[in-house]
Amino acid sequence: MADTKKRSLDSDNGTESGPEKKLASGDGAGKDTKKPTADPGSEAGSVLAGFQTEKIMRESSREKNIFIHGKMGSGPNEGRDAVLILEKTPFREDSLAELFKTSELKLQMRNDIYSTYHLHPPTHLNDIKATMVCPATEKHIKKYQSQELFLIQESGEDYRNITLPYIQEQSFSVQWVYNILEKKAEADRIVFEDPDPQNGFVLIPDFKWDQKQLDDLYLIAICHQREIKSLRDLTREHLPLLQNIQQQGQEAIMKRYSVPSCRLRVYLHYQPSYYHLHVHFTVLGYEAPGCGVERAHLLSDVIQNLQTDTQHYHTRTLTYPLRADDALLHKLREAGRF
Amino acid sequence: MADTKKRSLDSDNGTESGPEKKLASGDGAGKDTKKPTADPGSEAGSVLAGFQTEKIMRESSREKNIFIHGKMGSGPNEGRDAVLILEKTPFREDSLAELFKTSELKLQMRNDIYSTYHLHPPTHLNDIKATMVCPATEKHIKKYQSQELFLIQESGEDYRNITLPYIQEQSFSVQWVYNILEKKAEADRIVFEDPDPQNGFVLIPDFKWDQKQLDDLYLIAICHQREIKSLRDLTREHLPLLQNIQQQGQEAIMKRYSVPSCRLRVYLHYQPSYYHLHVHFTVLGYEAPGCGVERAHLLSDVIQNLQTDTQHYHTRTLTYPLRADDALLHKLREAGRF
Repeated sequence: MADTKKRSLDSDNGTESGPEKKLASGDGAGKDTKKPTADPGSEAGSVLAGFQTEKIMRESSREKNIFIHGKMGSGPNEGRDAVLILEKTPFREDSLAELFKTSELKLQMRNDIYSTYHLHPPTHLNDIKATMVCPATEKHIKKYQSQELFLIQESGEDYRNITLPYIQEQSFSVQWVYNILEKKAEADRIVFEDPDPQNGFVLIPDFKWDQKQLDDLYLIAICHQREIKSLRDLTREHLPLLQNIQQQGQEAIMKRYSVPSCRLRVYLHYQPSYYHLHVHFTVLGYEAPGCGVERAHLLSDVIQNLQTDTQHYHTRTLTYPLRADDALLHKLREAGRF
Repeated sequence: MADTKKRSLDSDNGTESGPEKKLASGDGAGKDTKKPTADPGSEAGSVLAGFQTEKIMRESSREKNIFIHGKMGSGPNEGRDAVLILEKTPFREDSLAELFKTSELKLQMRNDIYSTYHLHPPTHLNDIKATMVCPATEKHIKKYQSQELFLIQESGEDYRNITLPYIQEQSFSVQWVYNILEKKAEADRIVFEDPDPQNGFVLIPDFKWDQKQLDDLYLIAICHQREIKSLRDLTREHLPLLQNIQQQGQEAIMKRYSVPSCRLRVYLHYQPSYYHLHVHFTVLGYEAPGCGVERAHLLSDVIQNLQTDTQHYHTRTLTYPLRADDALLHKLREAGRF
């Protein structure tokens, strides 16, 4: 049963909570080849009306989001499993004045110079971002269930003996990545492209960023080369690719968003959420999910490491977190490596 | 009165942001225009109407909050300085069904099994928590002001020419560290000590951790050697010290708190907050401040780097963030390195 394509839809932390999230896909295999459609808003109004919550899989009071497993109501997917992710949206500076003028306010508590209120803004100033995965397989659902984390120390040998065979055996689908690279989906979201098949890449906003404000700026560079699974595959021959992504990615972000390179955190994940090389660009000061030292690797360090030793990522013991239910964790445990 | 005491109003570390009990606002669903009636807060409706934003002091897209400095409109405090903190509220499980039924939904994007929407809920299902400090003194205002961050690329030469002279010239006091090592202060807080003058250290809970629960566990190992300022001073000769801190630190935490090493993130900071070598132990899953890839260095990586090259931290370009008001940033700028 091959599958699990992972994508960054949620914004929690932890391991799989990387900037990207893991989304299993493969089981509903027929879906992978389906052409993406965009019929803005047509079916929208009714999609959620009959949605039946089965289980709250995860929620964060800090981040104001919630992950729900449920069944679709009437419509083409009626009765099918779905994962629904809701997240409150950040405040927008440009609508504050209107917010102050038009919101209802209710005093809750007052003490000396401190008071607290409930503010009820008009609907259009306070929307919620909703992400739907439908039909969702059991793997999708499992992936979103919150789980304990374990830190792995993976030697180069562990990678070749355990992790690599596991990745190959799963043959994770990255069809959605190819859809982007081939402009079959999300073409209008592309911020920059260098079409060179060797060193080129597509720069695209991460799903978690709604592009309305810069303080949670988050883009992903996806390389055109299809043979690089992760950090572990990199050698000195990839330096031109990596340097190109760093250089042109930063320039494109400066050009489009006026955010200079000294404000950007540029890094890779290991383990990545999907096994097609990609690089994360997030703005400094934004604690993006997955930017912790236990999972992120600064691109500038990766470049220096390869300049020093082309075998660095083949031989080095790498540390990363895995969720308790991750199949790779079980493989490592079976092999007595955890 | 003025600035007598500080009060914790923000929810930076999720400390104060528990799921808040919401008052069911009795006004009719979807009635944006209804005026709040005189109740506990009779002046409520007008408090914000004339509020003039002076400055956005801080905002977090992740936590969906914003800190605003402004002046009050009409009312008893007209024209006075105020700090207004707005924060979106967490989702409530008990109102999800109503949310699905009554919200407007607008399709934004669709690709394969993934789609995203804007959800417009009725006002009463989506309120905002507002906290007001008024009149606010300059200290209040300064307290909430965030500083811009800049990412520095410091070569080994930059360190020797700019950073090291700066550290020496400032002669930062670490007397409080010596007080701990000599048991002149906080002796009762020590969790573990290896008294060896070369490889020994003291393990002590970080001030940010109140030790009441394990999910934000945070301890610091402070070495007895006094000549190691930071990562930059480390060579292969320090390997026994580093390995000792890793090994015995993890064992002590297992013994005292029953948290195994595979649940611990063990790392150094560069730049550190004080120039006496120390190592951070935080629990996985807790996004401790400063555990981001731009500032943290896993101890296991530091050890491997030194095993490979004793000069690693003397020669390597290191990346780290500095606040706009940091004196070191000005030194680097003067030297044309930023």
